[in-house]
Parts: sequence; C-alpha cells; structure tokens
Amino acid sequence: MEYRKIKDEEDQIEDGVVGDAVTSRGVSPSTVTSFPTGSVDRLRWKRKMVVTIALTILTSSQAILIVWSKRAGKYEYSVTTANFMVETLKCALSLAALTRIWKNEGVTEDNRLSTTFDEVKVYPIPAALYLVKNLLQYYIFAYVNAPGYQILKNLNIISTGVLYRIILKRKLSEIQWAGFVLLCAGCTTAQLNPTSDHVLETPLQGWMMAIVMALLSGFAGVYTEAIIKKRPSRNINVQNFWLYVFGMIFNALAIVTQDFDAVVNKGFFYGYSLITILMILNHALSGIAVSMVMKYADNIVKVYSTSVAMLLTAVVSVFLFDFHLSLAFFLGSTVVSVSVYLHSAGKMQR
Amino acid sequence: MEYRKIKDEEDQIEDGVVGDAVTSRGVSPSTVTSFPTGSVDRLRWKRKMVVTIALTILTSSQAILIVWSKRAGKYEYSVTTANFMVETLKCALSLAALTRIWKNEGVTEDNRLSTTFDEVKVYPIPAALYLVKNLLQYYIFAYVNAPGYQILKNLNIISTGVLYRIILKRKLSEIQWAGFVLLCAGCTTAQLNPTSDHVLETPLQGWMMAIVMALLSGFAGVYTEAIIKKRPSRNINVQNFWLYVFGMIFNALAIVTQDFDAVVNKGFFYGYSLITILMILNHALSGIAVSMVMKYADNIVKVYSTSVAMLLTAVVSVFLFDFHLSLAFFLGSTVVSVSVYLHSAGKMQR
Repeated sequence: MEYRKIKDEEDQIEDGVVGDAVTSRGVSPSTVTSFPTGSVDRLRWKRKMVVTIALTILTSSQAILIVWSKRAGKYEYSVTTANFMVETLKCALSLAALTRIWKNEGVTEDNRLSTTFDEVKVYPIPAALYLVKNLLQYYIFAYVNAPGYQILKNLNIISTGVLYRIILKRKLSEIQWAGFVLLCAGCTTAQLNPTSDHVLETPLQGWMMAIVMALLSGFAGVYTEAIIKKRPSRNINVQNFWLYVFGMIFNALAIVTQDFDAVVNKGFFYGYSLITILMILNHALSGIAVSMVMKYADNIVKVYSTSVAMLLTAVVSVFLFDFHLSLAFFLGSTVVSVSVYLHSAGKMQR
Repeated sequence: MEYRKIKDEEDQIEDGVVGDAVTSRGVSPSTVTSFPTGSVDRLRWKRKMVVTIALTILTSSQAILIVWSKRAGKYEYSVTTANFMVETLKCALSLAALTRIWKNEGVTEDNRLSTTFDEVKVYPIPAALYLVKNLLQYYIFAYVNAPGYQILKNLNIISTGVLYRIILKRKLSEIQWAGFVLLCAGCTTAQLNPTSDHVLETPLQGWMMAIVMALLSGFAGVYTEAIIKKRPSRNINVQNFWLYVFGMIFNALAIVTQDFDAVVNKGFFYGYSLITILMILNHALSGIAVSMVMKYADNIVKVYSTSVAMLLTAVVSVFLFDFHLSLAFFLGSTVVSVSVYLHSAGKMQR
C-alpha cells in the first residue's frame, strides 16, 4: 500500500539533516525526554513547543469566533467560498514565506517550488478524504442531533491513535495509551449536558457512520503526517503549498457543485463581514499551524493541542460570554489534565 | 504523635513473620509486582485478592440491599439498634473464628484474647472518629442536599490517599497518584445526574464541612490500618474483637442518647424485617472484610474496591431494577478502569 511505502522510505532517511524533531525520535533517545540536552535537541524541542502552543491558541480562538459570530446574528455567506478563501490564503502565505526564504538562502533542491509527479501524486489524498467525510456529515444528521454529533466526534481521538500506530508504525507506551483513552473520555465528559444521554439511543447505522467518519478524519490526519515527513529536509512551505493547491481545487469543485447559483446571482463575497474575514484568517493560520505540528511534532500532539484548546475556549467564554461551567466540565478537565501528564510521563518509560 | 510511633514500631518489625503482605512491601520487591514468584508471595497475593474480591462483592450487594429495602417500602426500625447489632455480630463472628483457631492451633501469644492497656488504648480512636463524622453529617445537610452530599463524599478518596502518604508514610508513585485523582474524578463522573451542578453552589461552610468529614473518614481508615498493622503477627480476629467491642460501646451510647425512648416504648427490635436482618448480616461481613483488607492489603486497595463496587452495583441494578445507565456512567467507568490499570502499572515502575 502507498502509505506503507512512504513510511519505509522515511525510515531509510538518515538523521543528519537539520529540521525534524520527530523523524529522529526513534533514533536519538535524548529527544524523547522532556529535558533536551544538546543544542540541536533544544532547538527542535523549542520549535515543537512554539507550533503546539500556536495551534492551541488558534484553535481556541477559532471556537470563540464561532460563538461570537453566532451571538452577533446569522451570517448568510457561502461556506464553500469561505473554505476556498481559506485555502487560497494558506497558499498565498506559504508562497510569501518561500519568497523570503529564497531571498535569504537562495533556491535549493529542498526549497524549490517545482516538483515531480512522484512527489506530488499523494498530495490530493487528504483533501479527497476530508471531502468524503464532509459529504457523510450531511447524512449522519439523519441519525443523531448536533450535540450528539459533537459527542461522537471524540471518536476521532481514538481513531487517530489507532491509525497513528498502524500507518506510521510509531509506538505509544501503555501509559500513553491509557492517557489517550482518558483524553477521549475526558473531552466527552467536559462536553456533557442534560441532553447528552440521547446519544446512547443512536441507531446502529448512526454509530457505523460516526466510526467511518472518525476513521476517515483520523486517516486524513495521519496520511498528511506521512506525506510531510516523507522527506524531512523538504521545506514545509513547499509541502504546504502543494497540499493547499489541491485544497483550492477540491473547494472550487464544491463551489461549482453546491453553491454555483448563489455565487452567480449574489456574488462571490456576498454576506461577508468583519467576523467572516477574521474567521477565514484564523482558519488559514490554524491550518498552517496544523501542518507545522505534523512536521515538527505529530498527530498525537495535534489531538492533545486541539483538545486542550476546547477546554481553554470554555474557560475564556466564562469571561467573554458569561458562559456557565458545569461540574462535568471540571471533571472532564481534570481527566484531560491527567491525560496530558500521562502522555509525557509515559514517554520517559519507553 | 501516637500514629507516628505506631509506624516507627512497625518499621522495626522484621519481615520473617508469616502473615502480612503489605508490611513487607517496602522490603521485598517481588511482592510489588503483579506476578508473585515465591510460594509465600503467591499465598499472600492470593489472600489479598480473596479479601479484596470479598469486600467488592459485599459492598456492591450492600448498595443493592439498600435499593431493595427502599423499593419494598419504608422500614421504621431504629438505625442505632441496627448499628449496635452489626457490631455485636462482628464481635460474635470474630470470637467464633478464634474458638476454631484455638482448637486447631492452641492458644499462643498472638491469638490469645487477653490484651494489655498499651495494645488496646488506641482501639477506641477509629470508632470515636466515625462518631464525630456521623454527628457532622446531620449538620452538612443544612448546606447541601443528599445527591450533592453523595458527590462530595468522593473527596474521601483524595483524603485517604493524602493521609495514607502522611501517616503511614507509604509512597505512591506519580503514576499511582495520577490514578488516584482519576479514581475520584471517575467515580464522581459516574454519579453525575442533571441536578449535580447544584453542588457547585455549595457555600464555603459546606465545602469546609465536607473536607473535614473527608479528613475524619480518611483518618479513621488510615488509623485503623496503622493499629492493625502495628503488630503483623497478631491474629486479625483478636484485633477485630477489640475494635468491635469499642464499636459496641459507642453504638450503645448512641442508642441511649438518641433512641432511648423509642427503644423503651416500642422494643429493641421494633420494625425489623427480613431485609433489615440481611442488611445487618451484610454490614457485619463487609466490616470484617474491610478489616481483612486493612490487614492483608491497605487503604488504597479498600478505596479501589469500594469504588469498583459502586460501579458494579449500577450494572447489577440494570438487571434487577431496570436501572438506566447514563453516558456519564460509561465515561466514569472508563476513567475508573484506566485508574485501576494505572495503580498496578504504577507499582511496577517503582
């Protein structure tokens, strides 16, 4: 299978190249502990921390923007054009970063934009997987309501862990697996509300679809990591550029098939407001942060980062929107915190 | 302080004596793992398992009897006389066990009933602590309702862990501490219901009382362990006999001060039914099982055992009483299960 090949090639790449904290994890044990010793290790650890914190803050503010936009009233903009704009902006930002790099470092084999069919042929796959998942999303609501869907989405955590193990063949210790199960249970607990029990009445078809969607989303994430890590020395902005080009293409197809009439009659930017623009900007930056986390950390860190962001959002909402925290939220947050601890404590044991 | 002295004496006792799995834990590393190697270790491990499983089943059936008695209607028996009967029965059972032992093994220094003031002087303390705790119970309901009190009672878990560490000076590994925090969060999550959030509105006085009660109850448990383990070779039935004698005395005082008129007018056994008798029998056996767990295991095992029993009760109630399990229950059970795993995984690391 294709992803197996990617992993095998990656394994052959030696550790010498600057720039990848995670590929070398199996090789250099010092990057495994929380206290990096060498200066290269420290640099890698620092970069991993910066991208993780950036992703956490961006994801958290994303949710806050959504609450804000809901409070401010309904916005009748087309979601497909907004998604297209997000991909376009990510492309533009990657190009801008590359231009700066070319100016400073010159064009090299690793940072040149031109590519081969062999390198680029796997890039459309994550975008295609997300497309299928988003199509399924329309059908699952025949079986579960929106709050129930939010609960079921936590299955992503488990599917990401399982696929990370199978596809990228990276091992988690038993303690880390315990932490991962707790992350899923803790996030779900934090989201509990008096109507949550309805999710237990989900029919079998609903459960099947939820599991398939979790697997698709987990697979897309893990596959993106495999693509990005396939060639560790390759500049991340080039890799992002090609990923986002296919994102643009798939979203353009979505506009044509779903919103063509609305866009022709009302215009591409119909209904856009300041919040819409802020949300597009935030989504674009979050998307880039996700890629960076995939490059310099991994999908496990990504899942932890977005889970902690979910909790942060609730805490910030207390101050911004007079949001009321439930006992379930405190209990879930406690479980998630212990889970984060176990993830790093479990590393040291390996 | 008295309990410090107890601990110090215990530390001086050498490992040679038959009969105590836990005192030797710090000494022989082989008892620490889950897979005992020597035949003495295997015997200790087996006995520890038997008493733990007995406690779990008895505690679980205790809760089921309570539900059953509630369903069957109100029983107007006096709680103080029932408690006195429990202590009397435990005393009688300890004596019966001792009689058998004397017949088989003869009377020795370790199994003779006669005692010294020095040995027996600390025995009333746990009974006195429980009495103070039970008195406080009347007052806390001015600040929290009954379901809220059930939630707050989970603070016992944390207080037992902390006092176990401080008083018995036994260390838990970091992973085991993580497990202990999860046990508390998981049990509380499993008990969540739509009205649980009210507990967050508990005034400061209510919280203070809940914390004091948790400390009293944790202290009583840990102190009982200290007493029982002070002299590992001493027969547990003799130790139980003296503990329960003081239990009888304290409960007799409670009858005189609280239910004297009712007992004089209606009779000692007024309102007793088959269920009352079963509950007394169950409480007596559970009490003995608790002592055995303190002798052959420890307070941590006791807390895990009664927590798992709480979950078992709910599962059994599904079949017996058409009880409905909530999503919160499943999440809490998952967290408790992971916590049990972490407790044993954490042991191996030490």
